[in-house]
Amino acid sequence: MKIDVKECASILASKDNILILTHAHPDGDTLGCGFALCRALLKMGKMCSVINADEIPKKYDYLYEDIAPMKFRQEYVVAVDVATESLLGDLQGEYHIDMCIDHHATNSEYADVLLLEDVSAACQIVFEVIKELDVEIDEKMANCLYTGLTTDTGCFRYASTTASTYYAAAELIEMGADNGKINRIMFETKSKTYARLERLALDSMRFYEDERVCIITITQEMYRLTGSNEQETEAIPPLTRQIEGVEIGVTIREKPDGTCKASIRTYESVNAAELAKKFGGGGHSQAAACRFDCGVKEAREKIIEKCGELLK
Amino acid sequence: MKIDVKECASILASKDNILILTHAHPDGDTLGCGFALCRALLKMGKMCSVINADEIPKKYDYLYEDIAPMKFRQEYVVAVDVATESLLGDLQGEYHIDMCIDHHATNSEYADVLLLEDVSAACQIVFEVIKELDVEIDEKMANCLYTGLTTDTGCFRYASTTASTYYAAAELIEMGADNGKINRIMFETKSKTYARLERLALDSMRFYEDERVCIITITQEMYRLTGSNEQETEAIPPLTRQIEGVEIGVTIREKPDGTCKASIRTYESVNAAELAKKFGGGGHSQAAACRFDCGVKEAREKIIEKCGELLK
Repeated sequence: MKIDVKECASILASKDNILILTHAHPDGDTLGCGFALCRALLKMGKMCSVINADEIPKKYDYLYEDIAPMKFRQEYVVAVDVATESLLGDLQGEYHIDMCIDHHATNSEYADVLLLEDVSAACQIVFEVIKELDVEIDEKMANCLYTGLTTDTGCFRYASTTASTYYAAAELIEMGADNGKINRIMFETKSKTYARLERLALDSMRFYEDERVCIITITQEMYRLTGSNEQETEAIPPLTRQIEGVEIGVTIREKPDGTCKASIRTYESVNAAELAKKFGGGGHSQAAACRFDCGVKEAREKIIEKCGELLK
Repeated sequence: MKIDVKECASILASKDNILILTHAHPDGDTLGCGFALCRALLKMGKMCSVINADEIPKKYDYLYEDIAPMKFRQEYVVAVDVATESLLGDLQGEYHIDMCIDHHATNSEYADVLLLEDVSAACQIVFEVIKELDVEIDEKMANCLYTGLTTDTGCFRYASTTASTYYAAAELIEMGADNGKINRIMFETKSKTYARLERLALDSMRFYEDERVCIITITQEMYRLTGSNEQETEAIPPLTRQIEGVEIGVTIREKPDGTCKASIRTYESVNAAELAKKFGGGGHSQAAACRFDCGVKEAREKIIEKCGELLK
C-alpha cells in the first residue's frame, strides 16, 4: 500500500524497536537515509539501528561513528532506498519488511507500506519525513541527508537534479551540513589504489556500435594488481558516458566467484532501466544495474547485442 | 570606490551604449556574467555588447548565439569577474574601465567603481543586480547565470559553495535554467581529443615534497599529439588535488611561445592565492593562477621550491 509523508511519519512515531535495512553494496543515499532516520528516531527516545549485508566503505564513517550499537528485538522493519528485495543482498528473506521509503520508479512494492516519491535522492524523502516527525535536525543528521543528495545526483550534476534538490541542499547547509568536506570525501579524493585502478579501467575502455556504446571491464585481476577492491569502483560508471557520442556506457565488474554485475549509464536517447530489465535488473532512466551468472566476456557480448537492438 | 548592488543597478540603469569586458582565457563565470548582464541591458532597450581578448570555446555557444552583434560607440565600460587589468589579456589598456563586478578578494580596484562580494561565483552578484534592475529573467539569462554558478563551484562541489549558491541555483532552475544540459556540456562531455590529452596529463603527474605536492605538465607537444588545445585544459587542474595526501596541486601549461602558466589548487592548509602572488598572480584561497616568462622545467623548479617553503 502506498503512503504519503504524513502517514509515514505517523506510523514511525507510533512504533519502537525499529530496524532499518539498507541495500547491499551500500552507497551514500541508502546509508544517508538509514543513519539520518536512525538519528531522528533515537532522538525521539526509540530503540533503532541500521544494518547492511556488506561492509560499509570507510569513507562513510562520519555518518555513524558516534552512534552506539544497540541490541533489541526488532518490532518494525524499514527498508530505505531499496528498490527490490534482492538488492538487500544477504539480508534478503531474513526479515518481514513492514515499510519501504524509496525513490526508484521500479520499486517492486515488496513492503507492507511504501512511501515512494519521484525525487533525485531517497534522502530528500527522509528529510521530509524527519521534518514531519518534528525532530530538530542537527548537524550530523544534516550531514547524513546531504550525503545522500550529493552522491545520488553526482554532486548535483545529473539531469535528475531539480530545483527542489537544490533547495533541500541549501536548507541542509544552513542546518550545519559540511558540504565542502562531504564533497571532498565523496568526489575529490582518490586513494592511490583507486587512482591506479582508474588508469587500468580507462585502459580497458572499448567502443562498440559506431562508438555509441562504451564498455569498461573491471576484473578481479585488476583489484589484485592495484591493491584496490570493488568498494572503490563507485566513480567508474560515470566515466563510460563522458566520451562524446557515447549513448550507452556500461561498467562490468567481475565478482570473486567469476560472475559479474553491470552498471549502465545513458542519456535521454536510451532508457537504462529498460536495458537493465532485459537482464533482470532495474534502476532509473539514466542509471541502472543488473547481474549476470556468467563471466565478463559472455556478459559483455550479451550487453553489446541488446545495445545494438536498442540503438536501432 | 566600492558600491553595493542597489548603487550598481542604479548606475547601469542610467547609462547606455555599454561595453562589457570579460577576462582572457574565458570561463563559464566571466562569460555567464557578461551575457546575462548584456541580455538584461538589451531588454531594457540599451545598446550593449560583450567582448573578450581570446576565442570563446565552442561549448559556450548557447550563452550568446542568438544575440545579434551590434556596433556602437561605447559610453560606459564594465568588467565582469576580472580581478586585475592584466587578466583582460590583449584588451588590457584598450579601455577606461568605469565599473567592475567581481568576487575575487584579490581584486586590485582598477575600475572607477567596484561591486565586490564574497560569493562563490560572480554570476551570483550579477543575478542580484539583474533582479535589482527589475528585468524579468528569461530562460536564456537563467542559463547564463547558472553556467557561472556551476562552473566556478566545480558543479557545487567546492568548499566555497554556500547555502546562498544552492538557493540561487534552485531559483534559476525554476526560471528555466536547463541544469541537466549545462552540466552535461560542462562536466560530463569529454571530446575524444580531450580524453587523449587527459591520459597524457595523468602520465605526466609527478609528486614532490613527500607527495604533498602534485604537478601535471602540459606541453605544446601534447596538444600536437592529441589534436587537443589549451581551450580543452579547464578540467585538468582539479585532477592534481584529488590524490590522497596532496595539499598543493599545480598544472603547468606551456604556451606557444615557450613561456607558461600555472593553475594552483589547494585545500584549507595552503592558500593558493598566496602562492600565486609569489609569482605575480592571484585568485582565491583554494584556486589561483600565475604566469611565468620561463619554460615549463624552470617554472616547475620555482614552484616546487616555493611549495617546499610554504609546507614547512
